[in-house]
Amino acid sequence: MSVIQVSTPYLVFLGAVSNPLDAKTGRGLVDWRPEQCIGQLRYPGCRVDLGLPDMSPAEAVAAGAKSLVIGIAPTGGQLDRAWLDTLAEALNEGLDLVAGMHTRLASVFELATRAQALGRRLVDVRVPPPGIPVASGRRRSGRRVLMVGTDCCVGKKYSALALHRALEAAGRPATFRATGQTGILIAGSGIPMDAVVSDFLSGAAEALSPDNDAGHWDVIEGQGSLFHPAYAAVTLGLIHGSQPDALVLCHEHGRTQIDEYPGYPIPPLAECIDTYLRAARLTNPDVRFVGVSLNTAALTPAARADALAAVTAETGLPCVDPMAGGLAAIVERLP
Amino acid sequence: MSVIQVSTPYLVFLGAVSNPLDAKTGRGLVDWRPEQCIGQLRYPGCRVDLGLPDMSPAEAVAAGAKSLVIGIAPTGGQLDRAWLDTLAEALNEGLDLVAGMHTRLASVFELATRAQALGRRLVDVRVPPPGIPVASGRRRSGRRVLMVGTDCCVGKKYSALALHRALEAAGRPATFRATGQTGILIAGSGIPMDAVVSDFLSGAAEALSPDNDAGHWDVIEGQGSLFHPAYAAVTLGLIHGSQPDALVLCHEHGRTQIDEYPGYPIPPLAECIDTYLRAARLTNPDVRFVGVSLNTAALTPAARADALAAVTAETGLPCVDPMAGGLAAIVERLP
Repeated sequence: MSVIQVSTPYLVFLGAVSNPLDAKTGRGLVDWRPEQCIGQLRYPGCRVDLGLPDMSPAEAVAAGAKSLVIGIAPTGGQLDRAWLDTLAEALNEGLDLVAGMHTRLASVFELATRAQALGRRLVDVRVPPPGIPVASGRRRSGRRVLMVGTDCCVGKKYSALALHRALEAAGRPATFRATGQTGILIAGSGIPMDAVVSDFLSGAAEALSPDNDAGHWDVIEGQGSLFHPAYAAVTLGLIHGSQPDALVLCHEHGRTQIDEYPGYPIPPLAECIDTYLRAARLTNPDVRFVGVSLNTAALTPAARADALAAVTAETGLPCVDPMAGGLAAIVERLP
Repeated sequence: MSVIQVSTPYLVFLGAVSNPLDAKTGRGLVDWRPEQCIGQLRYPGCRVDLGLPDMSPAEAVAAGAKSLVIGIAPTGGQLDRAWLDTLAEALNEGLDLVAGMHTRLASVFELATRAQALGRRLVDVRVPPPGIPVASGRRRSGRRVLMVGTDCCVGKKYSALALHRALEAAGRPATFRATGQTGILIAGSGIPMDAVVSDFLSGAAEALSPDNDAGHWDVIEGQGSLFHPAYAAVTLGLIHGSQPDALVLCHEHGRTQIDEYPGYPIPPLAECIDTYLRAARLTNPDVRFVGVSLNTAALTPAARADALAAVTAETGLPCVDPMAGGLAAIVERLP
C-alpha cells in the first residue's frame, strides 16, 4: 500500500480551541465531507462549534466512528499533552488516531505503546506511506484532471474539491485525489507529495491515481507552482506522475508575483499555460487545459464578472470562481 | 551544516573483493582524488589493487588518514559482517567510517555503539544532512556551471569532474560540487539530491553552492534529466537551486530514448537546449549553454571526430568528449 488510508467516519477532536481559524481542519472536514463526520469532541470552554453532535469516544464508536481526527491546528502545530487522556481513551474505545500536526503521533510514547498494544493505527498525514515506487512512465487507463497554479495558496485544493463535487452532481464517476495533508484528511486517503523523497515523487503521483474505468475522472489536488523558485520540482513531479489528460489553471485575481519571493513575477496567464503544457506533454502528449479557476474573493460581484470575462478573453478558456458560481463550463469540457 | 562533510584523506577499504567492477568506488577515488587516498586495506585473496600502499588502520592513521571509506559495492549493496572487526578496529584507531551502501552504517549496532562511545562519525553519503532549508530564491555571488543531461548515466559526473580539473589546470578558482553519493566521496562533501525530501530539493541545491568570490566557479554535478518521466523533478529542483550561469549538455552518442523507458524519446539536442534554458531562466535569466559533453566511448577516433563536429553543427556549441580530449573550448567560455 503506497497511499495513506484513513479509516472513516471521524470523531472530530476540537479540545478547548477558542479561535475558529485554529479549527480550520475540522471545518474543512465538515464543509467537504459532512457524511464522514459523526460527532465532535469538545472540552469545557471550547468556543468553536462545527454543528456536529457532541460525543465521547465511546458514544462515537457506538455511532460508527472509526477514527478520532485532530481537527485543530494550534500555533506551532504541537500536540498538547493535556489531550493525552482523551486520546488514550479513544484508542481504548477502538478508534484510530489521525493527525496532520508537526508533532508525530507515533513520537508520543504513551500513544505509540498503547496503539501497539491495542492494534490501533496512528496515522500522520504528513508522513508519506512506505513502499512508494520509482515512476514507470506507463500510461494508465481512466482519465485525470490536475489543478496547477500560478503560485502556492491560490485555491488548488478548493478548486479540485469543487470540481469533484460538480462532477458527482452531474452523475459522473470521479474521485478526488489528495496530495496534501488537509486534502488527505478530507478524502480519507492520499499522499503528502511535498514530504516524499525526490527520487520517488513521480512514482508517488502514479500510485495516487491508479488504473481506472475508461470514463472515470481522477480530480487531483495540485501542489506548488512551476513558477515558484522553491517548490517547482514538487509541481513537476506531480505533473509527470499524474499524466493528466486535462489541466485547470488556478490563479488569484490581482496577484502579480510569487508570495514572499520578491523578484519572482507570475508570468502572463497565456505563458503559464504554455509552460504547463510543455511540461505535461512529456508523459501525456494529448494534455490540454479545460479552464481557469480564479480566486476573486476580494472583488465585488460586478468586478468579479469583469475579471472572469477578462481571463476568458486572455486565455480562450472558461474561467470560473468555484466559490462564487458553478463549474459547469469546466465539467462540460471533461469528456 | 546542511552539506555532508567527510574527513579526508582516506584509507580505502577493499576487503576480499575479486571483481574490479565491484571496486569502482575505490577506483573513482584514486582516479579523481589520488592525493586524498593514503592507502588501501585488503584482505588475503583480494584480487584488486588500486596501486596504493597496503595499510592497517593504525598505519593509515600514522600516515594522516582521517576516514576509512568502503571502496567496494558488492551486489545488493549490503555490509558484510565479516568486515566488522576491521571496521571496529578503524574506529578504535581514530578513523571515521564513510560509506554509500544500502546498509546504513548507523543501523549496525556494533558500529553505532562503538562510534558513539569513541566520538567517531559514521557518514552515510546516501543520507541527506539535517537542517536543509526551503529555497529562498536569493541570487548568490560567484558563478556556477551545471551539468544537465539528455538522460541518466550519460556522463554528467565525469564531465563535471573533468571540467573542474580543466579549470584548476588553467589556474582558475573552482570547486566541484557533488550531488550524488560517488561524487560526495570524491569531493569529500556534497548532498545526495535524489534522497532529499521534495520540499527541500531546491533549498539543498542552494546550500550546496553558497556565496563565493566573484571569479569563482562552482562546477555542479547534474542529476537525472528533464526528459525522464521518473526523475525530471530532481533535475528541476537542482537547476532552480543552483541558479546556474552556465549549462553543459551531457549526451551519449547514439542514444535515442530514455534508458529502460520505452516510448520516451530523447528530443533533438536543440530542443533539449531550449527546454533547459526555459527551466533555468526562472532563477537566472542570464543562463546560457557553454558546450556539449558527448560520450563517444563506443566510437573509433575518426568516427568520434565526425560525431563531435556534427553536434557542433547542430547546436552551435563547442562539443567535446572529456574522456578523449581537452575541455579548453568550454573553459574558454566560462568568464
